[in-house]
Amino acid sequence: MLDLSLPLGLRDLTPDHSAHLAELSARLQEVFRAFGYRRVLLPTLERLEVVERGLSPQAVAGVLKFVEPGSGEVVAIRPDITPQIVRLYAARPDALPDPARLCYDGPVLRAREARAGRPREVYQAGVELLGAGGPPADAEALVVLRRALDRVGLAHAVLEVGHAQFAGSVLAAAGLAVKARDEAHDALSRKDEGSLAALAAKAKGAPGARAGLSALATLYGEGALTRAREVARSVPRAAAALAELEGALRLARRRGVREVEVDLGEVRGLGYYTGLTFAGYAPGAGSAVASGGRYDGLLGRFGRPGPAIGFAVDLEYATQALERRNGRHLSRARRRKR
Amino acid sequence: MLDLSLPLGLRDLTPDHSAHLAELSARLQEVFRAFGYRRVLLPTLERLEVVERGLSPQAVAGVLKFVEPGSGEVVAIRPDITPQIVRLYAARPDALPDPARLCYDGPVLRAREARAGRPREVYQAGVELLGAGGPPADAEALVVLRRALDRVGLAHAVLEVGHAQFAGSVLAAAGLAVKARDEAHDALSRKDEGSLAALAAKAKGAPGARAGLSALATLYGEGALTRAREVARSVPRAAAALAELEGALRLARRRGVREVEVDLGEVRGLGYYTGLTFAGYAPGAGSAVASGGRYDGLLGRFGRPGPAIGFAVDLEYATQALERRNGRHLSRARRRKR
Repeated sequence: MLDLSLPLGLRDLTPDHSAHLAELSARLQEVFRAFGYRRVLLPTLERLEVVERGLSPQAVAGVLKFVEPGSGEVVAIRPDITPQIVRLYAARPDALPDPARLCYDGPVLRAREARAGRPREVYQAGVELLGAGGPPADAEALVVLRRALDRVGLAHAVLEVGHAQFAGSVLAAAGLAVKARDEAHDALSRKDEGSLAALAAKAKGAPGARAGLSALATLYGEGALTRAREVARSVPRAAAALAELEGALRLARRRGVREVEVDLGEVRGLGYYTGLTFAGYAPGAGSAVASGGRYDGLLGRFGRPGPAIGFAVDLEYATQALERRNGRHLSRARRRKR
Repeated sequence: MLDLSLPLGLRDLTPDHSAHLAELSARLQEVFRAFGYRRVLLPTLERLEVVERGLSPQAVAGVLKFVEPGSGEVVAIRPDITPQIVRLYAARPDALPDPARLCYDGPVLRAREARAGRPREVYQAGVELLGAGGPPADAEALVVLRRALDRVGLAHAVLEVGHAQFAGSVLAAAGLAVKARDEAHDALSRKDEGSLAALAAKAKGAPGARAGLSALATLYGEGALTRAREVARSVPRAAAALAELEGALRLARRRGVREVEVDLGEVRGLGYYTGLTFAGYAPGAGSAVASGGRYDGLLGRFGRPGPAIGFAVDLEYATQALERRNGRHLSRARRRKR
């Protein structure tokens, strides 16, 4: 009797579920195309060396790699599509315009689940704008994501926007010891103002930067930008980051981007992202329905230095959010009928 | 300096090429959906045992397999999507209607190129009708393929239709020795009537069946069905196969299927297919733009016996055919202008 089970951690998507993801994906591609992004189909496998060049050390550990029997090459099943697109941009300047607006759609696979209950294989659709920097490019990424979420029925999703250099600059200027810096990261991820204040009291930096350190946990919600401007007055690099963020937001709002919230105490993705960071959140989804940011350091690692920004929509989380929304609509409709 | 090359035999599809494939695929899915076929998304990896159960011994040799570091399981990157769909049908009767109309779209990968110049990773879109047999189901497969080809701009593609049991029944009835049977297969694949006649002269079967053997090379083109009926008079199993084929064709023609040609001397896919076989051909494509057939033996191997029929469109070959057609249209337009 044949065992019909799947490899550990993998799954089939049943017809309804698949149809939702496919429909969502088709609508996203329409929006991407309308903004001039061109679809690329990239191989399932890459040479491991290439994959590793595009990932953080933690992410490298989750890559599913093996030796190809035919060639003896060490290859990996792609755990992420962005590094593939960067490789293509670096390797084929002849085949692409500059800047290049590229989009993609497909599964990515890891050796094991990234978090409990999260499947190893997930479906993403995203865009990358390669070779373009500054507030106009940053604003474009926000505009495309906003329109994409609106188009698929997630107009109520909130875009949370931050900057990869802001909190880092304040942490550096506050003059923390190495161990205290790790503690500050942890405290920031919990938005634990008390612990940050205690660390600031023991830090050796200028008083303004130390005050900024404890304020980092408050840089979200109503008045976040006003408080961030106050912090930035004592930390020039934070001021530059804030100016970039505000420039992008101004342009994006002029192009109709709504439902934006700022969080400048965010430390997610530090090390990979170099500028604007953003994520889309909607009720019902287990995590962000989309996330992205500026990654100006990555192209140089592939031998063609330049600025770049992009985002990916997680089709699974976006579908969860849509189901929640549609479920509510249904129950409302039922209530009205009674 | 990082080597930006891809694993041997893999490639990127540039934006224009990708856009053609994606557009083609989207239109095919529209047609499939209109006929009630529901999309399923299936994992990139399967347990090797499952993959092997669905393939011929020759195809098994081309499967890209490896041991998963986490679980120690021997897995394969899917070389074909049909066996995955059959596995799903057998494993999840709760999640699917019966009969089940399922469709798919995605890349499949082999350990090495199946023929020179053919990429290892190719993109397919196809349908499977599981749990339904007989001429109506056979006709449905032809109708869906015909409409799909029409919809994507390949209305000029020819559907070549055959039956997996016809030539085999005649070969068996002709009473060939084992070695002569292999020679007959080779001769048939070359449509070499002379060699078949020579083999028939030495065979031990009934005279009618031996005459049928040499006629097998002529069972295509104008009058093929008339000649096939003649052959079938001496071979009851061939007559049954022919009746199935003619029944399906009658229904399909009634539903508007045109551009059909019959080839009953075809031995392609014997061993996998059990009934109606068909393929779509269009100028400019390196091989068939689509192919499929009835495979009533496969479901039982997965523990849920039943009839099934399906086909896959090769997105690459279909795109080649479309480019040839569009190129011709362009040159005609240019000629008219002069």
